[in-house]
Amino acid sequence: MYTYTLRFVSEDVTLRLTVGVARLLTSAKMVEHRLSLSTLVFSVAFIIVVSYSAQSLALKHSSRFLGKFAATGTHFAPLQFHYETRYFQQRLDHFSFSELPTFPQRYLISTDHWVGPQRLGPIFLYCGNEGDIEWFAQNTGFVWEIAPQFGAMVVFPEHRYYGESMPFGSAKEAYKDATTLSYLTTEQALADFSVLITDLKQNFSAKDCPVVLFGGSYGGMLAAWMRLKYPHIAIGALASSAPILQFEDIVPLETFYDIVSNNFKRESFTCFNYIKQSWDEITSTGQTYNGLERLTKTFNLCQKLKSTVDLYDWLESAYSYLAMVNYPYPSDFLMTLPGHPIKEVCRRIDGVPAGTNILERIYEGVNVYYNYTGKEKCFELDDDPHGMSGWNWQACTEMVMPMSSNQDSSMFPSYEYNYTSFQEECLNDYGVKPRPKWITTEFGGHDIHATLKKFGSNIIFSNGLLDPWSGGSVLQNISESVVSLVTEEGAHHIDLRPSTQNDPHWLVEQRETEIKLIEGWISDYHQKNKAIFDM
Amino acid sequence: MYTYTLRFVSEDVTLRLTVGVARLLTSAKMVEHRLSLSTLVFSVAFIIVVSYSAQSLALKHSSRFLGKFAATGTHFAPLQFHYETRYFQQRLDHFSFSELPTFPQRYLISTDHWVGPQRLGPIFLYCGNEGDIEWFAQNTGFVWEIAPQFGAMVVFPEHRYYGESMPFGSAKEAYKDATTLSYLTTEQALADFSVLITDLKQNFSAKDCPVVLFGGSYGGMLAAWMRLKYPHIAIGALASSAPILQFEDIVPLETFYDIVSNNFKRESFTCFNYIKQSWDEITSTGQTYNGLERLTKTFNLCQKLKSTVDLYDWLESAYSYLAMVNYPYPSDFLMTLPGHPIKEVCRRIDGVPAGTNILERIYEGVNVYYNYTGKEKCFELDDDPHGMSGWNWQACTEMVMPMSSNQDSSMFPSYEYNYTSFQEECLNDYGVKPRPKWITTEFGGHDIHATLKKFGSNIIFSNGLLDPWSGGSVLQNISESVVSLVTEEGAHHIDLRPSTQNDPHWLVEQRETEIKLIEGWISDYHQKNKAIFDM
Repeated sequence: MYTYTLRFVSEDVTLRLTVGVARLLTSAKMVEHRLSLSTLVFSVAFIIVVSYSAQSLALKHSSRFLGKFAATGTHFAPLQFHYETRYFQQRLDHFSFSELPTFPQRYLISTDHWVGPQRLGPIFLYCGNEGDIEWFAQNTGFVWEIAPQFGAMVVFPEHRYYGESMPFGSAKEAYKDATTLSYLTTEQALADFSVLITDLKQNFSAKDCPVVLFGGSYGGMLAAWMRLKYPHIAIGALASSAPILQFEDIVPLETFYDIVSNNFKRESFTCFNYIKQSWDEITSTGQTYNGLERLTKTFNLCQKLKSTVDLYDWLESAYSYLAMVNYPYPSDFLMTLPGHPIKEVCRRIDGVPAGTNILERIYEGVNVYYNYTGKEKCFELDDDPHGMSGWNWQACTEMVMPMSSNQDSSMFPSYEYNYTSFQEECLNDYGVKPRPKWITTEFGGHDIHATLKKFGSNIIFSNGLLDPWSGGSVLQNISESVVSLVTEEGAHHIDLRPSTQNDPHWLVEQRETEIKLIEGWISDYHQKNKAIFDM
Repeated sequence: MYTYTLRFVSEDVTLRLTVGVARLLTSAKMVEHRLSLSTLVFSVAFIIVVSYSAQSLALKHSSRFLGKFAATGTHFAPLQFHYETRYFQQRLDHFSFSELPTFPQRYLISTDHWVGPQRLGPIFLYCGNEGDIEWFAQNTGFVWEIAPQFGAMVVFPEHRYYGESMPFGSAKEAYKDATTLSYLTTEQALADFSVLITDLKQNFSAKDCPVVLFGGSYGGMLAAWMRLKYPHIAIGALASSAPILQFEDIVPLETFYDIVSNNFKRESFTCFNYIKQSWDEITSTGQTYNGLERLTKTFNLCQKLKSTVDLYDWLESAYSYLAMVNYPYPSDFLMTLPGHPIKEVCRRIDGVPAGTNILERIYEGVNVYYNYTGKEKCFELDDDPHGMSGWNWQACTEMVMPMSSNQDSSMFPSYEYNYTSFQEECLNDYGVKPRPKWITTEFGGHDIHATLKKFGSNIIFSNGLLDPWSGGSVLQNISESVVSLVTEEGAHHIDLRPSTQNDPHWLVEQRETEIKLIEGWISDYHQKNKAIFDM
């Protein structure tokens, strides 16, 4: 047994605010707008790498970035990590015998540091999520960096329907309609991983080599669920920022926006209040003569604003992403940003001379997100938030993650989640009816603590409390081997990112703890394996 | 904590025999014949209730019985158990969003003894297997008998593609071809159960009521796998005669036929030897002039024997079923049989006057199985063992359970399992390619002890060592709550059958142990639940 220190935070992550009450925005259009945002936010953080149909909100504004991480991929291959790219033919439907074409699942593999099957060298497998796998490989430096000390093989399989892993021969065909998209499900993706690992183990004569899973965000959910559904496949999982509880009413629906808001409030109460007040200001400006023109000018938009709702989307996306990537050092994850970007946003919002119009303040702030490099001449707003993107499909089928916002506790307008409208939207957009209760039926959720306690083992749920997704994740220790690593200053799966010289001590410590836990799993496995051999 | 006594048997179940070596049967035809038998035996024991297409080996001989248990069902509703019949609309494919018609899953439900949600009355759910659910309800008296003392609701959902639970509107349509059959898989069936339970719990406001699973044979496999795959759905499972290890090379491929043989050898070594010698006698007789006519006469067949292979099938089926239903009391499960039927078979084989032809002895013996009531005038042999039956489809897709027979250890001709021929047969019969490694990828198997130890809890694997399927089941205690109940004198899921006045003491004890274990699960659950409420 080894010892390790876990850092726990006892406060409720959804800090209730007692600030002044923002005026209620009740227009039907607004409700509709908030609805689409609530299900899209999770999406956009990750599908930005999907070049062919990245049309969800805010993505249009990141087109420059999208170009950089286009699906062809080779130009962003991380030079610092060496791997081969291979393809594995997968069944399209693992759970039926329908005669369907197979598809090539791309995976990146490195055996450079693997000590081989004789020494039971571990296999580190990253559960590819909703995007090009090379981009995830590049942004998951932790796995590559620790592989040598573990003598581990590294495998990054791509998630079906993303990157190059396209059924039906091409992204165009795969994304054609609900029929071709219908096999884009979580359970199929988990089965893909299981079949691939089983095949790899056989080809490498590595049947007894322990597999350790890694995943961030939706990939973290996949890693945790895989540990529950395929316990015989892998010995443990590091599930970073994995909101497996963000379904039905398991966590308060306001959690996400409350945490985003808290990111701003902790930096500056005035900043928080300016944002809180800005929504009504936008609405009332929009209703005046020439109001949309004025807003277009204030926010330096390339095209004339058609509706204030589009501006809401643009701003809310910026705030939400900022909370997710509120890293303590300069980063390039979603946008080029300074360290502590929300601190910088608030510094600018608050710093404008007294008497400045509130919307001008806001514009100064969001410039940090949309134009930190200063290269943007003007901003394009998306006018088609319902494009055929992979994550939007998943959100409209299984990944139904309801969210509301509460005007008392957040800086956002009030919005109450409405499943009926949501369903209607999915029927309109994809011709598909969501199954909002399926994920909890298939994976559990309501009694997840009991389930994990009794059936889970060797799972790390790591979360940073700045990350709005932390509210839907597991934030308590469940058992000796199902542990929660919570960092007060962490944002979205920061622990999986490549280490930098600017890493704060708590991040260095967090990663050290994770390494010790993984070492423990492997050491336990070796001991049991030895015991079996000795018998 | 309560105490209970488990009865364990330490001997290896596959007793190695040192009897004389039977001559090796090497004809290609014979190999093919044994192949089909090896994958069919499991089938026929259970699909006999499927009236529309029960064409697998030996079933033709049970047509009288089939009529009795026809799919319409109402006439064999067990009068002693009161229930309602209901239907639940299920998705055809739970794991994709293909636009497919739903189908009505039939389920039997009784709330007569249920103490209701306030008192957290348990829900006993039998995992319907490959047949008409009313027949299973009738043959699973244990669940009905213990329900009152537990204050339990009883639910018997039917397995998709069996009985009345037919996709595409009718059995004829559902069984039309590989396309319509393609959703007949184990994972879909488990998802059916999970979705149904979740819905029932909601409708009965019984969210917190503990579910206990029951299942025999393939139903037992479903119960055990459901406990691993859906631990959040049920608190425990009684998996009776569930050969979850009869896949790939997890157990010796000869296990099944060795156990069948041992059933005969333990009764009479001479009987065992007569059977062992009979195969060559049949082959050599068949090769003589008029040999097939003589065999037709000896075995009182209605139609002239076309090939000795058909006779092999007929005899091997009888021996295998006899071992499965080698119950200590008269029974009507597959055929009308006396208690200890193999004892009676051997009494007749051995009892024929000295000097009698060996084949006449054999005929005397198998009459016990095929004609104990004496009502059969002659016997019909099946000439189409590859009909579209549900279990044959399952055996040709996921349930690939390889079997060989060893001439040294068994009374059967030697046969070495040949996957290539098996695959060819499935391609010919159904146009489907089996996935022989899928079950172990999906559910585990090779390391099942480790998996069950770490992830399983509250599972009883009950087995009788006379049952040839016991060799592919879990026969060791795995942990404090994953236990194996082994009875030396038990046959195929005898513990689930209705109690009789002739039940031997070991069976009464076994059931008492099972009741105590289930009480323990429920009591643990209540305590934990109470602890949560008290918090």
